[in-house]
Amino acid sequence: MADINSKLEIGVTTGPIRGSKKIHVGPLGVAMREIYLEPTSGEPPVRVYDTSGPYTDTAATIDIAAGLPEVRAAWIRGRGDVEEVTQREVKPEDNGQLGPDRSGGVPAFPNVRRQVLRAKAGANVSQMHYARKGIITPEMEYVAVRENLGREMLKEYKRDGDSYGAAIPDYVTPEFVRDEVARGRAIIPSNINHPESEPMAIGRNFLVKINANIGNSAVASDVASEVDKMVWSIRWGADTVMDLSTGRNIHDTREWILRNSPVPIGTVPIYQALEKVGGVAEDLNWEIFRDTLIEQAEQGVDYFTIHAGVRLPYIPLAAKRMTGIVSRGGSIMAKWCLAHHKESFLYERFDEITEIMKAYDVAYSLGDGLRPGSIYDANDEAQFAELYTLGELTKRAWAEDVQVMIEGPGHVPMHKIKENMDKQLEACGEAPFYTLGPLVTDIAPGYDHITSGIGAAQIGWYGTAMLCYVTPKEHLGLPDRDDVKVGVVTYKLAAHAADLAKGHPAAQVRDDALSKARFEFRWRDQFNLSLDPDTAEQYHDQTLPAEGAKSAHFCSMCGPKFCSMKISQEVREFAKLQNQDSAAFIATEDAEKGMAEAEMSQEDIDAGYAQMSKAYDEGGRELYIGAGDREHD
Amino acid sequence: MADINSKLEIGVTTGPIRGSKKIHVGPLGVAMREIYLEPTSGEPPVRVYDTSGPYTDTAATIDIAAGLPEVRAAWIRGRGDVEEVTQREVKPEDNGQLGPDRSGGVPAFPNVRRQVLRAKAGANVSQMHYARKGIITPEMEYVAVRENLGREMLKEYKRDGDSYGAAIPDYVTPEFVRDEVARGRAIIPSNINHPESEPMAIGRNFLVKINANIGNSAVASDVASEVDKMVWSIRWGADTVMDLSTGRNIHDTREWILRNSPVPIGTVPIYQALEKVGGVAEDLNWEIFRDTLIEQAEQGVDYFTIHAGVRLPYIPLAAKRMTGIVSRGGSIMAKWCLAHHKESFLYERFDEITEIMKAYDVAYSLGDGLRPGSIYDANDEAQFAELYTLGELTKRAWAEDVQVMIEGPGHVPMHKIKENMDKQLEACGEAPFYTLGPLVTDIAPGYDHITSGIGAAQIGWYGTAMLCYVTPKEHLGLPDRDDVKVGVVTYKLAAHAADLAKGHPAAQVRDDALSKARFEFRWRDQFNLSLDPDTAEQYHDQTLPAEGAKSAHFCSMCGPKFCSMKISQEVREFAKLQNQDSAAFIATEDAEKGMAEAEMSQEDIDAGYAQMSKAYDEGGRELYIGAGDREHD
Repeated sequence: MADINSKLEIGVTTGPIRGSKKIHVGPLGVAMREIYLEPTSGEPPVRVYDTSGPYTDTAATIDIAAGLPEVRAAWIRGRGDVEEVTQREVKPEDNGQLGPDRSGGVPAFPNVRRQVLRAKAGANVSQMHYARKGIITPEMEYVAVRENLGREMLKEYKRDGDSYGAAIPDYVTPEFVRDEVARGRAIIPSNINHPESEPMAIGRNFLVKINANIGNSAVASDVASEVDKMVWSIRWGADTVMDLSTGRNIHDTREWILRNSPVPIGTVPIYQALEKVGGVAEDLNWEIFRDTLIEQAEQGVDYFTIHAGVRLPYIPLAAKRMTGIVSRGGSIMAKWCLAHHKESFLYERFDEITEIMKAYDVAYSLGDGLRPGSIYDANDEAQFAELYTLGELTKRAWAEDVQVMIEGPGHVPMHKIKENMDKQLEACGEAPFYTLGPLVTDIAPGYDHITSGIGAAQIGWYGTAMLCYVTPKEHLGLPDRDDVKVGVVTYKLAAHAADLAKGHPAAQVRDDALSKARFEFRWRDQFNLSLDPDTAEQYHDQTLPAEGAKSAHFCSMCGPKFCSMKISQEVREFAKLQNQDSAAFIATEDAEKGMAEAEMSQEDIDAGYAQMSKAYDEGGRELYIGAGDREHD
Repeated sequence: MADINSKLEIGVTTGPIRGSKKIHVGPLGVAMREIYLEPTSGEPPVRVYDTSGPYTDTAATIDIAAGLPEVRAAWIRGRGDVEEVTQREVKPEDNGQLGPDRSGGVPAFPNVRRQVLRAKAGANVSQMHYARKGIITPEMEYVAVRENLGREMLKEYKRDGDSYGAAIPDYVTPEFVRDEVARGRAIIPSNINHPESEPMAIGRNFLVKINANIGNSAVASDVASEVDKMVWSIRWGADTVMDLSTGRNIHDTREWILRNSPVPIGTVPIYQALEKVGGVAEDLNWEIFRDTLIEQAEQGVDYFTIHAGVRLPYIPLAAKRMTGIVSRGGSIMAKWCLAHHKESFLYERFDEITEIMKAYDVAYSLGDGLRPGSIYDANDEAQFAELYTLGELTKRAWAEDVQVMIEGPGHVPMHKIKENMDKQLEACGEAPFYTLGPLVTDIAPGYDHITSGIGAAQIGWYGTAMLCYVTPKEHLGLPDRDDVKVGVVTYKLAAHAADLAKGHPAAQVRDDALSKARFEFRWRDQFNLSLDPDTAEQYHDQTLPAEGAKSAHFCSMCGPKFCSMKISQEVREFAKLQNQDSAAFIATEDAEKGMAEAEMSQEDIDAGYAQMSKAYDEGGRELYIGAGDREHD
């Protein structure tokens, strides 16, 4: 643990992701990444969505102690509805320091702002407010360019997929983004005090996003490793990061993270409020919570998890459960309610909280404090009672033009997942759904990134806008750097699988580029196009380390004798020589009919035999056979 | 690589899986495993399905050179329809030895049988044949006991789930097993020359099964490591194992595996046939293939992958594909058809193959040689043309009472998975479906156990009977021991998630036991109840190594201050004191109505406050709060 007086050494991973280059597109310089393919491919670079910020940009100089450039500063001030105010003074209890002793603390961020922004009296600086006034902000324009990725190739793609009633456009215009934000179907988390963030949208009609959780805990506190984890998680694709720090140094840790984060940061303010009262839930009160919201809003937190749906009347519903209340925030509020036998102050003061959100454009992430913690408890009355309250609060927030998303479970077997999505859409008027997994079974601790990735892919397909990752350490321990990467990559592939199934235009471009590279044995392209090029190449090299194997027209699975590319070229040649369309060979739903056609086509083929035989002999009777990838036969 | 003259050293993992004991139930001694819980739990041991054979039985002595006990020998001979014949002489080419030089070979299995079994002239020894004659075999009885696992607790479980039209019974009787086998809806792979195997069923109305692939390749050949991988894969739950060996020593490797395998073994005979003709596909012919089938049937292979659906007329359909033909067996046959411009001899000789299957009870696994190798090629006409031919062949095999399952893809986006299941059920008359994944995206090489686990869980839910695992090395290299374990555990959790979603009676028993252990902080029980206890404990200890932490009422995620169990006990107490049923608090689908009820219940609660307040004070105002597991808030 760093001492407050020791110089803080923070090292983060920088440099381009293998085989690719960070680019900035259009007048707004929208961040993207281009993956370059081997010249032999004759293919253009493949553009992919990129969340890694300046850290992968060779042109950028990174200084953690200075923080990132403020890409949004001019846009925010340009709207003329904010004023500078002196930042709330940092108190010792903000860092869990209840006395002058600051040992075990971490150094304050050197480049901290003295002046912060706030909406002018009576103003509302939320993206939703602008959207509803018909204003297209630069944030909305940025999102439109960012989401359109690859859609210029759309003509090659017939729309495919089943979006379960979503309204995904062929092309994303700034006006479409504005309209989605105005309706509340999407949010653009963008606290005016977090100008370092690159605008992104969370909504059912945009690409599915993922969140990574980081944060100190009472048993481990090291700001350097948390900043490193943040940078590491966005390198692999985290769209937002939640700082779930507890224990000491919460304020300073968050400042280091925010000033260096190009993605929106979310928090659960009740954690810090609880630390301020020494961890005694019943000592919490509105004044301390309110002060914490302002403290964090001034630092630039983009969304707050608020468990305002944990109402006193619902708490007894958890009595029947196998695993009670597993949400930390939910149980804190449940205890408060029981101790005072009063309705939750978060619920009672909701409109006052909304006034604070308006003044900084902090988005609500309405917490599911009563989510199920086991398959047994899935979809029970406690969970859905809270959900409908979140729906009511959503409408109250929207009445004030404040952005809202809704948190969801948790632990749910596959056949009960869709009901969660359906009820959320109904109860919350299509406000973006943000779920944790869900885990589809409880019997695989150590593999819960997978049990939850299965549920995440499905609920993402059904309409969930953002998936909160789960790491292999879930339920067992605190994730380390490797766990963070595995969690992020697992959720990226789940989110992408959902985009494919929803029929996002051009979502398949990357799959096709990688499949083509695989089929043509362009190994490096296959590695570089994958979500984790380093691991892909490492696995390949474990069996065939030789440099030559990278360009070899065979793989370790089948060896030199086998190659599906050659056989397929042969097949194409064969079809061409027959000078007829393959359609003649199509089998129908009816097996017998299919056979009949097959027989029929038999004759058609005969014509091709003579030529084919000749062509084949001329070809030296030499060709490879076998599978390009060894599958189960 | 072992030399033929060196003594073979084979080490396999033995001993019980942590926290559990191998048991044998009933007169047939059906293998199961019991997981023992801490006495404090007051819970009985949890019985789980077990595939590990004698290797986890402390009472068993393992001698790899002698092979396993022949549990089925008496049953097979007792039916009086088999005769002993001298085993076909092993030829050098069976092991890829095309001359006297046997260097690079492996020693023959010492305890090899000279005499093998075959059906008497005119007899049919398939389980399907007995079933259709109304005979309940010991194999069927064994399966019934094995599948009923936990169903005696059924009264505690209301049936739940959506089985998509399957006919899962509350309780599995031997007669139900017989009827499913007679209809062809389930198979019991049980070659009469593999008496070491413990009977298991593959069918839509039984628990979802998984297969693990092992095998030498041209670039790596080591029989010891293959036997070790087989034992390792069944330890973690593989229900069947396919030996996909190619290159040299195919015959001897298979003998070592079969004699030591308590699970059914599958192969792709065309691989060995190809080696016998020096890898030149066009030199394949019926006589060599037929001889190979007999060679392998006499050794005891339980099911053969036969790519008889790769018909000449369908090959041009692959011309339009992005990734052509990725099935190795499929491309071998495609090349043969093109070279000779003839219909596949596997298709033409299908009925002769069926005669061989009958004589040993080898089950068909009709191969999908034209399965898609990429998202782009999913559900195309080549794939479905072949599927309907497999349906035609299924009916021909059933006409001779030969057991059949159907292999399926591959690479399929989520929205196209169900069509695969629907068409397979229609085309193949509910013959068991056996799929490879499918992978739901192509962009994550290195993580394809996960991309395919997502598809596997879904298609298993829809009705697929067995899921062929995919390891992290898929598309990149050959799986090592660790990859095999990760692949097996990933598929076990996917299969279990499918069982839960299908509503298998009592499938949830293990989830509930683990959730309860988690909630009560019985860490060791949580580890032991998981699919991989070793990894679960190791992950836990990385954060909290102290022995005391194993019984501590807190975890590394939340620390000592937080415990959801206590808050929930408090909640139960609160509900009890209110002396009323929680039903009063149920919110309805209608948010407004829900609120109304909430208000109403508010009054009901007031009555409870006074007592509650008193109870709480008496309780010393002391209770823990927080989450039992740290999730996203």
